[in-house]
Amino acid sequence: MTRRRAPCIALLTDFGTRDWYVGMLKGVLLTRCPRIPLIDITHDIPPQDVIAGALTLSVTARWFPPGAVFLCVVDPGVGSSRPLLAARANGRYFVGPDNGLLAPVLQEATSPTVVRLTNARSWFKTESRTFQGRDILAPVAAQVARGTPLRALGVAMPRVQPLALPQPQRVDEKLSGCILHIDAFGNLMTNVSQSALNRHARFAKRAVRYKQHWARMVSSYADGRPNELIAVIGSLGFLELAIREGSAAWTFNAKRGDRVDVIVG
Amino acid sequence: MTRRRAPCIALLTDFGTRDWYVGMLKGVLLTRCPRIPLIDITHDIPPQDVIAGALTLSVTARWFPPGAVFLCVVDPGVGSSRPLLAARANGRYFVGPDNGLLAPVLQEATSPTVVRLTNARSWFKTESRTFQGRDILAPVAAQVARGTPLRALGVAMPRVQPLALPQPQRVDEKLSGCILHIDAFGNLMTNVSQSALNRHARFAKRAVRYKQHWARMVSSYADGRPNELIAVIGSLGFLELAIREGSAAWTFNAKRGDRVDVIVG
Amino acid sequence: MTRRRAPCIALLTDFGTRDWYVGMLKGVLLTRCPRIPLIDITHDIPPQDVIAGALTLSVTARWFPPGAVFLCVVDPGVGSSRPLLAARANGRYFVGPDNGLLAPVLQEATSPTVVRLTNARSWFKTESRTFQGRDILAPVAAQVARGTPLRALGVAMPRVQPLALPQPQRVDEKLSGCILHIDAFGNLMTNVSQSALNRHARFAKRAVRYKQHWARMVSSYADGRPNELIAVIGSLGFLELAIREGSAAWTFNAKRGDRVDVIVG
Repeated sequence: MTRRRAPCIALLTDFGTRDWYVGMLKGVLLTRCPRIPLIDITHDIPPQDVIAGALTLSVTARWFPPGAVFLCVVDPGVGSSRPLLAARANGRYFVGPDNGLLAPVLQEATSPTVVRLTNARSWFKTESRTFQGRDILAPVAAQVARGTPLRALGVAMPRVQPLALPQPQRVDEKLSGCILHIDAFGNLMTNVSQSALNRHARFAKRAVRYKQHWARMVSSYADGRPNELIAVIGSLGFLELAIREGSAAWTFNAKRGDRVDVIVG
Repeated sequence: MTRRRAPCIALLTDFGTRDWYVGMLKGVLLTRCPRIPLIDITHDIPPQDVIAGALTLSVTARWFPPGAVFLCVVDPGVGSSRPLLAARANGRYFVGPDNGLLAPVLQEATSPTVVRLTNARSWFKTESRTFQGRDILAPVAAQVARGTPLRALGVAMPRVQPLALPQPQRVDEKLSGCILHIDAFGNLMTNVSQSALNRHARFAKRAVRYKQHWARMVSSYADGRPNELIAVIGSLGFLELAIREGSAAWTFNAKRGDRVDVIVG
Repeated sequence: MTRRRAPCIALLTDFGTRDWYVGMLKGVLLTRCPRIPLIDITHDIPPQDVIAGALTLSVTARWFPPGAVFLCVVDPGVGSSRPLLAARANGRYFVGPDNGLLAPVLQEATSPTVVRLTNARSWFKTESRTFQGRDILAPVAAQVARGTPLRALGVAMPRVQPLALPQPQRVDEKLSGCILHIDAFGNLMTNVSQSALNRHARFAKRAVRYKQHWARMVSSYADGRPNELIAVIGSLGFLELAIREGSAAWTFNAKRGDRVDVIVG
């Protein structure tokens, strides 16, 4: 039986790009799994924002080739007793802390495999407990990329820390959702999916309200008029609010969690 | 006849690095063209700033090896009817929207080949029209990198959207140019090229004026004195204004488009 | 005798990621050393901050595989007469200006080899002296990565420009250090090493004071209480000040150079 080498290791962290943390991870990965292609997904998850990290990971992972390994470090609890995980889901591999970061990708998968990391043979033994990304997760990701089976890394983990993402609520004639993510263009992604819309508003004229403003539903950003608030099904299949060639976030001082109502009745 | 695989796919976008857009592109590229080296040129083109993107692409591309593929996404008109292009120019390949982004690299090339993308076989069919970079341009870039000839991707495009970059004007004893780009060091790159200077000011003492200040012409940043505004022929062959170990942009509150006069008479 | 190809070229610069400088470097490296894996350590060293660059390089390099080549450009003196260097230290290779940037990695190595670059055969000959990173250092890094011996690149350099990093001082019952680096999480790394602590404070109760505040010594970030200033031995083996799930830099308006006292008496 030959082990299959991963096509790449993809990195998703909240380390930022100014410090040495990312460089250290990459050095460890290249040392332990020579010539593996390293792919930066992002290092600009807001510091310790597990929700943003989990969301970014879950929407991105499906676009990667089978066998890809994801090294995920957004970890407010570093050094505490929360477990560290390695998992297989939908043919791809994930290494990260058990704090909800991996929860969405595992939830969406059919019969994922998850282990709690216990086999310390590959770990770096340092006096510090402040950088487990470098000392534990990176060596493990390199092992996974080289084809080491998950069961050699730890013990089965029947249940992981869930991530509680808010769900839209139907109240009378309204489907009330909220803003989940604000992107760099200032577009506002909500938690109202295309399928939720179809379920609740099949025959009705849909209207979208945000902070007393009405948004017109269009099918692409380019259909917006200057300064007009538009609603569009974005590239993830969720309702987004946007202003063509402008920033809806800036214009409306938007925050994650802001309520967005869809009139469906 | 064997097809030649590209040495790399280089990415140039205005996506920023905080969101999932770049990760999705990379996932698609690796899935469709396994193990192709992916090179980040930049994802920090100011949002929807086609001029900055075009300028960055045109000065960078020539330093890449022949056969390199450039995936370029700065696209305020995403989802509209503007064409999407694949092109060959000076031995390198370019994939992006027809909005001026590719115009300078095509202009500088001798007999470039350009096709409008029409063959949808490799595209992702999603309900969204908001992320054609992922759904159309990335799969096409992967095809090009694998050696698919341009003619298999679409139909010949005799003329692309031009990019109107301002040109310096000679008025009496002055050559009046403007600031085209402000870099992260605060250096101010103008549209006055070394060759324009040579043409207009061969025998004269050159003097450079910006916002009532005179800049001394020197041959490298290190020749500047503390806090002194200097003018230098920069690494692209254009006149730049700078302050040694300081920021000319910050000191003079510089903006793109600001006028810069060279006394040549 | 076969030459050994490097496992990667790692880049460390202060170019930022908005401009074309990084793209040009990468293009040159791929042209001159086809398919070499390029690894971004960081391009966000504060502009012309040689100390931050030197520190980042010295703590990161040791995590990379033997034979790795580091292309390092933080160079306020670009175009001046300061030498450019190529060096071998601890089995890895370094290319950069002689301004202190490489000093710590060379200092820590046993018998490093250093040459001053004089063989201009591989350099780009441009009229500009403003981008020696692209025109000289990148071609040389590519040569080193392809296995060219250092002695073919220049002449032996017995002594390089040192970097004067402040050292902690013992005064009576205090070990007085200072903040060397502030990371993106707002953690404050000091110049007080674990070994200095052990040397000076073996038997005493250690107490750490910063700006009239006392920090509690803990063994990982997670041991901190909300809003509590903690002191921890960080991932580099130096004392760090931090606030769990908060920013010590923001809370205390911290600056590099700020004094930190450890009571050891």
